[in-house]
Amino acid sequence: MSRRLPEGVRVRELNPHRDDRGSFTELHRLEWDTEIEPVQWNAVRTNAEVLRGVHVHPTHDDYLIVFGGHASVGLADLREGAPADRSACVVTVDSEAPVGLTIPNGVAHGFYFHEPSLHIYAVSHYWNVADELGCHWADLELGIPWPQGEAHVSPRDEALAALADLLDELERRRVRV
Amino acid sequence: MSRRLPEGVRVRELNPHRDDRGSFTELHRLEWDTEIEPVQWNAVRTNAEVLRGVHVHPTHDDYLIVFGGHASVGLADLREGAPADRSACVVTVDSEAPVGLTIPNGVAHGFYFHEPSLHIYAVSHYWNVADELGCHWADLELGIPWPQGEAHVSPRDEALAALADLLDELERRRVRV
Repeated sequence: MSRRLPEGVRVRELNPHRDDRGSFTELHRLEWDTEIEPVQWNAVRTNAEVLRGVHVHPTHDDYLIVFGGHASVGLADLREGAPADRSACVVTVDSEAPVGLTIPNGVAHGFYFHEPSLHIYAVSHYWNVADELGCHWADLELGIPWPQGEAHVSPRDEALAALADLLDELERRRVRV
Repeated sequence: MSRRLPEGVRVRELNPHRDDRGSFTELHRLEWDTEIEPVQWNAVRTNAEVLRGVHVHPTHDDYLIVFGGHASVGLADLREGAPADRSACVVTVDSEAPVGLTIPNGVAHGFYFHEPSLHIYAVSHYWNVADELGCHWADLELGIPWPQGEAHVSPRDEALAALADLLDELERRRVRV
């Protein structure tokens, strides 16, 4: 990685133990310094060349593991006081060398799946519509250096607003609090 | 299933939401009545025709989801006061219709994987060697109606003692407590 990660993003190497039968991998321990206490775990299967996001959560933190396949995770810091370049970057995660990735609230994220993939993730708070914001993944102002290639996007994600609108909405919420 | 499950074993249907991109499945919520508060989550890949177990934990509870492939989960109640037939049974779990399976402490369990499989599981307590007991999976006294077929077993599981010895050990621990 040539760019720095947004503050609070953590990448923890996991250690699959392999034998003749298969493998065993610890995904998460409460005592680890992942900075998340999960209330819920989900699993997501994704077809090749699908892009999910870009989303940002004012409240909840995510902790995720790509456990099948290979993904490029785009990140951009949208918090008050973030660097001008938003520390925008792409973290490449591959199930051959699995990692646990902590994404704190306020850090926008999207996922591009290069091949059929499985990811498992934990959240620190239950789902709440008010905590589900986003912007169009290809917005140049976001600064995420996405890989080249086809990108299949859901109608909902394709309809997401411009980054400028998302930043206005985040600012309104901060003023309201 | 023609036989009843050991008391406290729960089978919770999960609901994959599928769309053009893939699927989304909630695996666990703290607020669900799974009777487990996970301290740790693990993921296990297993080759076809492998049998893991039979193990029993005096202390910790397990909650597991077979999320790839297909397994027969053998169960037998080894707790004080269990029915004479130990409610021994096999629960068939298939990732096409995923379930969350709660296995309380004191219920012996083993897994036979019919095809290459992935299961994800939570534990209520961290690993402790004193909490890892077992017996030979094929012990007839156990009463588990395993499916027919090849069974590749690890040297450690193959060397596990007879059920009678395991029951003696569990009894010694109850007396000691």
